[in-house]
This record gives sequence, structure tokens and C-alpha cells, in this order.
Amino acid sequence: MAPSELYERHRATLESAVEAIRGRHYWSPYPESPSPKVYGEGAAAAGEAAFQAYLGKDFPLDQVGADDRIITERSPYGLPLGVGYPRAGADELIAASAAAGRSWARTDPDERAGVCLEILDRINKRSFEMAHAVQHTSGQAFVMAFQAGGPHAQERGLEAVAYAHDMITGYGRTVRWEKPQRRGEPLVMEKRFRAVPRGIGLVIGCNTFPTWNAYPAVFADLATGNTVIVKPHPNAVLPLAITAAVAREVLAENGHDPDTVLLAAERAEDRIAADLALRPEVRIVDFTGSTEFGDWLEANARQAAVFTEKAGVNAVVVDSTDAYRAMLGNLAFSLSLYSGQMCTTPQNIFVPREGIDTDEGRKTAEEFGADLAGAVTRLLSDPAKATGFLGAIANRGVLDRLSGAAALGEPVLEPAEVVHPDYAEATVRTPAVVRLEADRRDVYGREHFGPISFLIGTAGTEESLRLLRETVAERGALTASVYSTSPEVLEAAEEAAADAGVNLSENLTGQVFVNQSAAFSDYHGTGANPAATSSLTDPAFIAGRFSFIQSRRHA
Amino acid sequence: MAPSELYERHRATLESAVEAIRGRHYWSPYPESPSPKVYGEGAAAAGEAAFQAYLGKDFPLDQVGADDRIITERSPYGLPLGVGYPRAGADELIAASAAAGRSWARTDPDERAGVCLEILDRINKRSFEMAHAVQHTSGQAFVMAFQAGGPHAQERGLEAVAYAHDMITGYGRTVRWEKPQRRGEPLVMEKRFRAVPRGIGLVIGCNTFPTWNAYPAVFADLATGNTVIVKPHPNAVLPLAITAAVAREVLAENGHDPDTVLLAAERAEDRIAADLALRPEVRIVDFTGSTEFGDWLEANARQAAVFTEKAGVNAVVVDSTDAYRAMLGNLAFSLSLYSGQMCTTPQNIFVPREGIDTDEGRKTAEEFGADLAGAVTRLLSDPAKATGFLGAIANRGVLDRLSGAAALGEPVLEPAEVVHPDYAEATVRTPAVVRLEADRRDVYGREHFGPISFLIGTAGTEESLRLLRETVAERGALTASVYSTSPEVLEAAEEAAADAGVNLSENLTGQVFVNQSAAFSDYHGTGANPAATSSLTDPAFIAGRFSFIQSRRHA
Repeated sequence: MAPSELYERHRATLESAVEAIRGRHYWSPYPESPSPKVYGEGAAAAGEAAFQAYLGKDFPLDQVGADDRIITERSPYGLPLGVGYPRAGADELIAASAAAGRSWARTDPDERAGVCLEILDRINKRSFEMAHAVQHTSGQAFVMAFQAGGPHAQERGLEAVAYAHDMITGYGRTVRWEKPQRRGEPLVMEKRFRAVPRGIGLVIGCNTFPTWNAYPAVFADLATGNTVIVKPHPNAVLPLAITAAVAREVLAENGHDPDTVLLAAERAEDRIAADLALRPEVRIVDFTGSTEFGDWLEANARQAAVFTEKAGVNAVVVDSTDAYRAMLGNLAFSLSLYSGQMCTTPQNIFVPREGIDTDEGRKTAEEFGADLAGAVTRLLSDPAKATGFLGAIANRGVLDRLSGAAALGEPVLEPAEVVHPDYAEATVRTPAVVRLEADRRDVYGREHFGPISFLIGTAGTEESLRLLRETVAERGALTASVYSTSPEVLEAAEEAAADAGVNLSENLTGQVFVNQSAAFSDYHGTGANPAATSSLTDPAFIAGRFSFIQSRRHA
Repeated sequence: MAPSELYERHRATLESAVEAIRGRHYWSPYPESPSPKVYGEGAAAAGEAAFQAYLGKDFPLDQVGADDRIITERSPYGLPLGVGYPRAGADELIAASAAAGRSWARTDPDERAGVCLEILDRINKRSFEMAHAVQHTSGQAFVMAFQAGGPHAQERGLEAVAYAHDMITGYGRTVRWEKPQRRGEPLVMEKRFRAVPRGIGLVIGCNTFPTWNAYPAVFADLATGNTVIVKPHPNAVLPLAITAAVAREVLAENGHDPDTVLLAAERAEDRIAADLALRPEVRIVDFTGSTEFGDWLEANARQAAVFTEKAGVNAVVVDSTDAYRAMLGNLAFSLSLYSGQMCTTPQNIFVPREGIDTDEGRKTAEEFGADLAGAVTRLLSDPAKATGFLGAIANRGVLDRLSGAAALGEPVLEPAEVVHPDYAEATVRTPAVVRLEADRRDVYGREHFGPISFLIGTAGTEESLRLLRETVAERGALTASVYSTSPEVLEAAEEAAADAGVNLSENLTGQVFVNQSAAFSDYHGTGANPAATSSLTDPAFIAGRFSFIQSRRHA
């Protein structure tokens, strides 16, 4: 097979990525700063223009279903997007994907990695366009949409390619096997090994992080030789439509079947995800969303390897601190960022009823609650600044839960409406904090997705850690954090987190937040609790997507 | 943590094992030759004496259930073994295993690997004892029992340790993560990563390869920090009882809880495997056996990662050969070895009705069948030699299927009884070969475990390959092989095998047989067809047994 030009072009990047996943050190190939110095003087304007050009038109995607267009999105900032997407049936999608799979499965792993990196590189160059698309589908504020929907998502995609390529090429592709014999010549066999994909990968996207949560699966599937059908959330199609369009362009330019990547847009009531997930040709399903549908997929899509990220009850244990103001500031930002609509936002804050020791003296649980509420209020006091990280409420469900939050306990902080300076119709809300006692596990023991957190009074840190362990083991979590000045408590928290199977952040007071994870270094999820079947990304996220198959003959 | 003495002792072996799994070259740390030159002058006699000493007594295993003894084995060679094993209830087993898990999970991965290698090393030194135990439970002939039940099984165990240790230690355990900031000092975080096990691993053994099929799971579980409950087949307890005893001895000597490995012997009607498999504490299940129970486990043990090896329809496509006699000899041996009671024995031999080209001229399908029957008959003409690789029929089910084989089609070779020169009561049979047409997929499309093979007349090699592809994709297979002098046919066979997800042997004529695979180089199973969920051993066999869990704090 001819050496892959695309692979050679991106080889250094891939090698650095593999080094980074193994070393877990800081590394960032796609700059997160939306600065003209990084992305070029005209990049911001060009990106916005490209986004505007999509509005009210058929999205330029020439694939099955292109004759039947559907419009399903409306921006949480109030804009009717009016973009028409191809709507194809399951049969058409499966047939086209399976046809593309015959050659993609046989494409050299280096070339597949090269194609993936070229796609990511082109998407990276369009990060401003993507930022607008993500902002106006997820409701994320612009800078967050740029970072989380752009470079950070791209890095999570590259990370998956690095794992996949490393795992596939880390084992010999051919070997001359020579077994000595007691008498005479050795037995000699020529053996060939290839990584054979499972088939079609179905990637079911979510409303809030359309690219970030989909890219690891999309690129893991592609790099391991599977074709991909991307089923976006009906509220957040544009970011994945752009992704599919770029992928198809790169595939076609390089002599591959563009149907290796297909978009499966649908009306909310179509339920095409469930149809596709049960098709025998679909051998991998990746899903981010509700526990209900995730569990259904795991129970029913038995012909497929199913990877899910579902609901969880993220926990914070507050024991003591030597940086009270910084702790409050860090927590306030974590609760406010994207109005708590992150699967990583803390929900349950466990605090001893008796209070905590701080550098500002002992604080009762009531004082801590009031101080946290004050920190959030101060953080959000200027609507222009506040909307810069609050973003907008993504959907009706979040809004409804927020309205009901106060009734769940004793309000510590009431949510408020914020008028967005640029988008009068945007639905913007500040977070709610509700006080509960430890015995109200019926309330805090399940996820309340959105800007709703609970301040839970406990008998002490031992009980806090026990509740962290139990609630996370039972309902899952993507994040946990602890504040303590005691090495013993930190050690106990690490043990509790390991037992519950959740990653732990300790004493975050600066510009690192529990709801954020860095690609190549931080694991997102663990696979060790009910919130996710594996990490983005770890070996388990990759290994089930292909099999090694060998042939052997006498030499 | 103090450096692990056991790890240092076995480090060179482990490093060579990791090199071998990555390079796939020949490597063998445990010699397969039962020669006094290798294992020592007194080894054979000592091993036999050790085996004899078990008979008619309580097996020396001090664990839960030791007060309640059961006897369930009878040698296929006629000896009543009369060994009493502890019989514990699921609750006792789970409680003891979970208690041991608390410290084993926290044991350093190097120490865990060291413990595994010490266990394997001691088992290796007792290979003669193990050979007798395997012979008199599985029915394998002595030399095969020595090799497959001893060194080959040990190597498969070591292989799993190599994968596990490599996967766990291939990623940084700690890192100082430094993110440059536009202004000022970098953000610096200290991060720690650990591989956290899932919990208790249940390993359900089989009758025919009690150690070979169990060791990969047992050692993969142990090396990834899980505790193990070994549930042997009631007909084949002794080999796994010896294994558990050695493991517990090594664990205890090195300050670990011996209950890290427990034996769950049962009466056939106890169905303790099903009980244990559904317990929430059991987070990994490995099973070798019937498709029925394997499917049940996959559908019902939802709390666990389930790895199964089930039935399959192994295929041989005969197209042409330039070594007719050698091909017949190789096939005859593959059909006869252990009376076809290997999950890797060829079942379906596809031959064009019109015949095949050979170095002895064109042979019709009828001639080929007669010549194959002749080759088997010649191979088995001397009962003393024949019983040396036929072994004995392991159980009633195999015997019943063999009795009914002739009625399935047109007999090409009738099975015969053989009187074993040493064991008058041994049930020894020669293989049956039955001729069928390609349209009798109702017969050859399912597994007939035992010495039963079908000679299937096809319209040509194209149809043969199509049937290989279809039957393997539908019902699974652990092996496939092809005979052809045509590079195009070999290429097409490789494509068919890759599509069907089965490993392929090509033109085997010498001392390599399709039913044998070499540890560190050959994959056993693929995970890409219904016969197995993954290979012994590939990354997918390991990755689901642990999760990486991290903690991070400001530096």
C-alpha cells in the first residue's frame, strides 16, 4: 500500500498526541484562545459570515435524504435558525454506510488516522464558524462555545485517534514466527494481523455539547475503521452538520467514500436513534443523554458495543479550607458556568452542619451557604459579564426543573432572570442553591440537570464522604471534589472517590474548575460508576471497536 | 510503597512477555516438553505421586466451605477420583472475596504482576501433577494434558498478565501538569492516576480445558486488581483446585489475603454459577461453554463485564493443493486430536463437488473423502499410539452426539471404539466424517461438539468461501483454514475470514495444526463473531476489567 500522504502531513501531531496520552502532561495542538493573533485577523468575521450564510437555507450536504429537508432548531438566544437538513430513513442510511464500510474497513490504519487529523485540522480552522453554531444550538456563551465546541472538542477527537492508532499499531502487523524443534529445522510461519472494524458506528449527540461529546466517538470509530452515522439532537444539528460536511469533503478529496460519515437529522418525534440502534449492521452505539434512553440502549442494542454517558450526581465535600474566598469564588464559577448545564457541574455540596474551619475562622453551614450565595450573586452582578459565561437555557426541560427547585428544600439562593444585552429573547437564568438535610436522599440522590445545586447538611466529613461514596456508586457522577486542609481527609476522599469510581479534584481555588477537564491529561468519566461506561478517552473506550484478525501460513 | 520483591524476581520474564505480545514472535517461557532434561529427573514420578495422593481424600484447601465436602469427578479413563472439595454458598464466597478485594485493589500493579508470575512459576514446576489432574478430568491424553493443561495454559495466563500490566503501566501514574498562561505564571496541577479494579471476577471453567480456558481470565482479573472466584466444571475440579491452592499459598506467603482467589466447587445441580453471576458484587464474568448459558450470562449479568467463549462452526475450505498427502495427514490429525473435543477442531470441510486439483492429479470430492477417511484410519491404526492423542471421551453428551452422527448424512468414516491399552474402562472413540450437500445448512450450520465433521459438497470454491463467511458470521467459529495453490483464492479466503471475523490458517501441512494456537503470537478467538466476545488475549479482553481514576490538586 502506498504511504499515506495525509498521515505523513499530520504524523508529528499524532505522535505528540500519543506521547501526551501516555505521559498525561499538558499539551494543546488546537489553541483555545479566540484571538486574531492565533486564528488570523479575518477569522472571527469570516466565521460569523459563514454561520450567517447557513441561516434560513438548506444546509449544503449532498448525501442520502438530501431531497427531504427538515428544520428543527431554534437558538436559545431567540434566533430562528431555519436551516434545512437532509432527512433520510434508516434503510437508506444503513445501506450507504455499509457500502462505504467495505473500502474504509480495508483502508490502512495510517491513512485512516491521516484522514481523521485532516478533518480535525480543517474543523479547527473553522472554529469561529463552529462557535456560532454551538452557541446558537446549545445556548453556551460565545467564548465557551468557541472553546468547548471548537478546540477542546477537537482535542478530544484527536485524543481518541491517538488511542486508536496507538492501540492498533502497537502490535506487530506481520511476523516471521520461528519455533525451534528438538531435531532439525525450526517451524517457520508467516503471520499477518489486521485490525478489523465492527461495522457501522452510530453516534447519538446531545443538546448541550453537540461536538465535545460526539467527537471522541466519531473519531474513535473512524480511526478503527468503522463508518459513522451521526444522529444529532434535533435542537443541535448545525455543529454536527458542519462536522459531517468537512469530514465528507476530506474523505472525497482523498479518494474515500464520503458516505463513511453520514448525518441522520430527524424530527424529535422520529425516534430514528432507536431504530438505527437495533439494526444488525450497527455494531457500535455511542450515546450522551438521559439515563432512561442510555439504559434502554444498553439493554436492547445487544448486537452492538454500547458506550453511554448518562445522568449523575456530582458531589463536593467541603471539610475545611485555608483559602475561603478563593474556594467560594471557584465554586460560584463552577455553579454558574453555562448555567449548570454541564454533565460535570457540581450538584451535591456536602457540608458539616456544625460548620467548617477556614482562614477566616469557623463558618457554620448557614454562613457557608450565605457566603456561597453571595459569591454567586457578586459574580453575576453585571449582566453583560454574567451572560458571557452563563449562556442561555438550552431547553424547556431545564427551565421547568429550575422553576421547581425552590420547592425541593430551603432556598439558599433563588434563581433570577437576566436580560441579555445582545439577545432580548434569550432565556438566561442564574443558579439556584437549595438547602437540604442528609436524610433527603430522595431529592439529592438523583440528577436535577441544570443550574440547581443542593447544600446538604451532614453530621461531619465522615458522613459527607460516605454519602459521596454511596450516591455516586448508586447514581453515578462525572466529577467529585473536596476541600480540606487535612491530609488525612484528602486521603480518605481519594479512597472514597476510588471506591465510588469517580475522578476527584482537590482544593480547587484558581483557574481550574471541577467541571472542566483537559484533553490528553484528565479523564472525563471513568466507566466505574453508573454515569458512563468508559472514559473519554481510555483504552476501554477504544478496544471494543475493532478486533485483531490474523492469518498464518508456512514460510 | 516498597519495591516489590516478587516483581523484581520475575521482571525479565514479564518484560519479555510484553515484547512478545507486541512483536507476536515465537517465545516460550514454560517448556512444553515433558522431558526429564527440562523438568528434572524426578519430576514425572513426583508429579504422579502428588496426583495419586489426592485420590479418595479431601483436597487440602483451607477456605470457606471447607467443612462441607463434595465429590463430583470421575475420570474419563475410568478411575473414580473421589476427591472432596469445599462447597461454599454464594454468600460466603462473595463476603470472603469482597473482604480480600479491599486490600488487593490497593496493591501496587507491580506487586500484583509479581504475585501472578510467582503463582505461574510454581504451577509450572508442578506441570506433571497438573498433567495427571487434567488427563483424568478432561480425558485428554497424557502428553496433551501436560502441554495444553500445563505450559501452554501457563503461557496464556502469563500473556494476560503481560497485557494487563502493560496497559496499566503504559500511562503515567503521576504528572505535574503545567499550562502556560498568557500573562503570569503557568497553571500547575499535580495529578495522580490509578487503575481501579471493578470488583469480583467470576471465572466459570469448562470440562475439556479446565486450565487453558480459565487462566487468561484468572490472571487478567488478578493483574488488574480484581479478586477471583473460580467456579470449575463439576467434572473438572482438580486442576483448578490445585491452581487455587498454589495461588492462595503464594498470596498468603507474601502478606496478601488468600481469599483473593477462591474455589467455588459445586454439584452439577447447584447452579451456583448463575447465582454468583447475578450478584451485584460480581463485576466480571468469564465463561467457556455452551452458547445457551453464555447467551444467558450476557443477557442477565448486566452489572458485570461478561466475556464468553461459546459454540462455533469451524470451517475448512479445500480448493487445491500441491501437497495432497501432507494436507490429508494434517487434517486427519486435526480431526483426531483429543477426539475432536476442542473448540478449535474443524467441523465443516467445504469441498467442490467437481473435485480439486492436487499434486497427485484431480481428485473428486468422493475420492477426497475416501482419502481423508483413509488418512484418519491409518493415523489411528495402532491403538497404543492412537490413544496417545485421541484421549478419552469427556462426557456423555459427546458420546450421544457421536452415536447419532451417522444419521445426519452419508457416512464417509464411521466412528469406532478403541480399547485403551492402560485403561480398560476408558471410553475412546475415533472420529466420524459425514458427507452432506451444501443445502443441509440445518445440520452443519450448528455446532456438533465432539469428533464429528462434515464433508460438504459445494458448487465450487466461491460457494465454499461464501458458506464459510455466512456460517461463521451467523454461528461463530474459533478457527478457519483454507487449502489452495492459488494466490487469488488465498486472498479471497483472507477477505472472507476477515469479514466473518475469524482467524485463518493457510495450507497447513506440517507440524502446525489449525486447532492449536501459540501464546503471545496467535490470537485464540477474535470477538468479531458469535463464538467469543474477545480474544485470548487482546486489548479488549483486558480493558474492561479496570478503570483509570484520577485525582488532581494545585501544585
